[in-house]
Amino acid sequence: MLRSIAMSALKQLTIDGPFQMNRGELESPTFVYEAWGSLNPARDNAVLIFTGLSPSAHAASSKANPTTGWWEDMVGPGKPIDTSRYLVICVNSLGSCFGSTGPASINPATGSAYRLDFPVLTVEDIANGGKAVIAHLGIDRLHAVVGASMGGMTALAFAMLHPDHAAGLISISSACRSLPFSIALRSLQREMVRQDPVWCNGQYEFDKPPASGMRLARKLGMITYRSAQEWEQRFGRERATGDLAGPPPFGIDFEVESYLQAHAEKFVGSFDPNCYLYLSRAMDLFDVADHGGTLEKGMSRVKVERALIIGVETDILFPVRQQKELAELLKLHVADADFRALASIQGHDSFLVDMDRFRPAVASFF
Amino acid sequence: MLRSIAMSALKQLTIDGPFQMNRGELESPTFVYEAWGSLNPARDNAVLIFTGLSPSAHAASSKANPTTGWWEDMVGPGKPIDTSRYLVICVNSLGSCFGSTGPASINPATGSAYRLDFPVLTVEDIANGGKAVIAHLGIDRLHAVVGASMGGMTALAFAMLHPDHAAGLISISSACRSLPFSIALRSLQREMVRQDPVWCNGQYEFDKPPASGMRLARKLGMITYRSAQEWEQRFGRERATGDLAGPPPFGIDFEVESYLQAHAEKFVGSFDPNCYLYLSRAMDLFDVADHGGTLEKGMSRVKVERALIIGVETDILFPVRQQKELAELLKLHVADADFRALASIQGHDSFLVDMDRFRPAVASFF
Repeated sequence: MLRSIAMSALKQLTIDGPFQMNRGELESPTFVYEAWGSLNPARDNAVLIFTGLSPSAHAASSKANPTTGWWEDMVGPGKPIDTSRYLVICVNSLGSCFGSTGPASINPATGSAYRLDFPVLTVEDIANGGKAVIAHLGIDRLHAVVGASMGGMTALAFAMLHPDHAAGLISISSACRSLPFSIALRSLQREMVRQDPVWCNGQYEFDKPPASGMRLARKLGMITYRSAQEWEQRFGRERATGDLAGPPPFGIDFEVESYLQAHAEKFVGSFDPNCYLYLSRAMDLFDVADHGGTLEKGMSRVKVERALIIGVETDILFPVRQQKELAELLKLHVADADFRALASIQGHDSFLVDMDRFRPAVASFF
Repeated sequence: MLRSIAMSALKQLTIDGPFQMNRGELESPTFVYEAWGSLNPARDNAVLIFTGLSPSAHAASSKANPTTGWWEDMVGPGKPIDTSRYLVICVNSLGSCFGSTGPASINPATGSAYRLDFPVLTVEDIANGGKAVIAHLGIDRLHAVVGASMGGMTALAFAMLHPDHAAGLISISSACRSLPFSIALRSLQREMVRQDPVWCNGQYEFDKPPASGMRLARKLGMITYRSAQEWEQRFGRERATGDLAGPPPFGIDFEVESYLQAHAEKFVGSFDPNCYLYLSRAMDLFDVADHGGTLEKGMSRVKVERALIIGVETDILFPVRQQKELAELLKLHVADADFRALASIQGHDSFLVDMDRFRPAVASFF
């Protein structure tokens, strides 16, 4: 029982009834998505994109929304994920705050925002949200399910949970489970938000979010999303100038401090803190071994015909050895599984910025 | 004009008069140190150890203080830094809070703690504190100046500022300047402390320090001091049990979270937050190129006869390529400069824990 409402470029699906989650359920959640291109008569040319933690469904611009999308260089007519050949769909993750139901959404049972009453979120739940969207669109089998970072985990979860519904898989800078180094970093980021007195156990006023904690968390995120090498080339020991520069010894002195400050400010206020906490924890919890007892057994559920696994040598958050592990496990069951380690220096975020390396790598699949 | 007071194992030197710093001066500061072994008649067997950010001068146990020291496996009779052959001295850094004058010490001009009135601290100032101590002990030329992490920078600064006063240099997991990745991490750690409302612009009550900010900062420190590989082997995805384990989704769930919590708690309350801020910033500011305009010119001031540079392949804070750079610059002027890259998996902290690799490496110098 599904109903859909058109919202300019953003499309909306609201489930009529309960939506089962791994550790709870939601009443009538909404999933928003954007779509580019058209479904062919065989209905087998759809590509589903899952996002990282922070992006919306707006992966690329369109007539309905001409704003530059977060993967503008990758998605569009004639681009690697070619919207003149494929129906490309990007879903806003369950638990996020850009249209799909999340902790900042109204709980129909109470008439107030869920906040911390939102069920524990898992990557599998996000994948099932994507499944609901393609079912709604009448798509039985995707040409490919694609994602980077958290989206790569989600694409993998989709392929594992819905093996008959994806012919191909692209997982970028992702992992088949979170390891203690990245868990520690995300745990600390969440603690920064939770320790901000304004967070108030999740009961902050939406127009007065815990900005200080979110700023700290985002800065740590940015430090782990890029690489030491890139920053050495980009900033070196350059000193900050301009409005952000502050008095010694603890004011902003180095350009890298000014860069972090400026970028963190943009994030604060645009992303709901409780949503951030839930999505962050979902990544920690992800483990393919939860599906069968071992990584091997979990991965054996993936039945795609073709897979492409991409990792980046300078990624400290999802190190390239985790992509290699993922690829090797896939190769046990998927004849055509391609693994590419890219020499990008932009670390985990390379898929968003090093397009000269990423465009041909992704295009090779299509 | 120096006077010295014996304090069990800890010895104290108080300068009688002003002490010039790079960016200010202190009136009659105190330096504390410990010493093991004896000076030979030629007075040429002294080894001076500078510490990292957090340790005290208590590098090794002695009759006067039998507590295990922070480098117990390295310093002692028959150990790599052999106190039966050398007079080994370890100085508590200027700016620290374990006896030497720092932001938590009383400013004689006001009768209150310096707090943020303490002058901007630089690594060079800490090195000059060590110089004052050896001058006080009647030592003109050290057999070697030794340090790891911030202590390695300090040892290098000593060799650069006092070229006639050190015959040898050992720099471990250090660098000839801070780069933006480590500056960003430390800047963020300081911001965590400064954003804690209890910090109160440095005016907190000493018995009620900004524990929340310090806990966050220490956790980030620990994440950057070790390595992803070590934690993967040590914790994997093990779940926390016991008192620290908390309710989902944001309570402590993974063992690595519990480990960080337990260790951060130990640091909070034992280290003064303002001292932490000053020492942390001193590392950011360090740049050999400040001494002559370029790294090459700065390093050309070092006149030691022998040098040993050790780095660790898994160190993300002071990456091994920075030790290699340091060694290559030294080799331009020091005939006997040995560079060793160790395969320890414990990251930056390896010099404190991977003694099987570090003992022989350091022993090779002596």
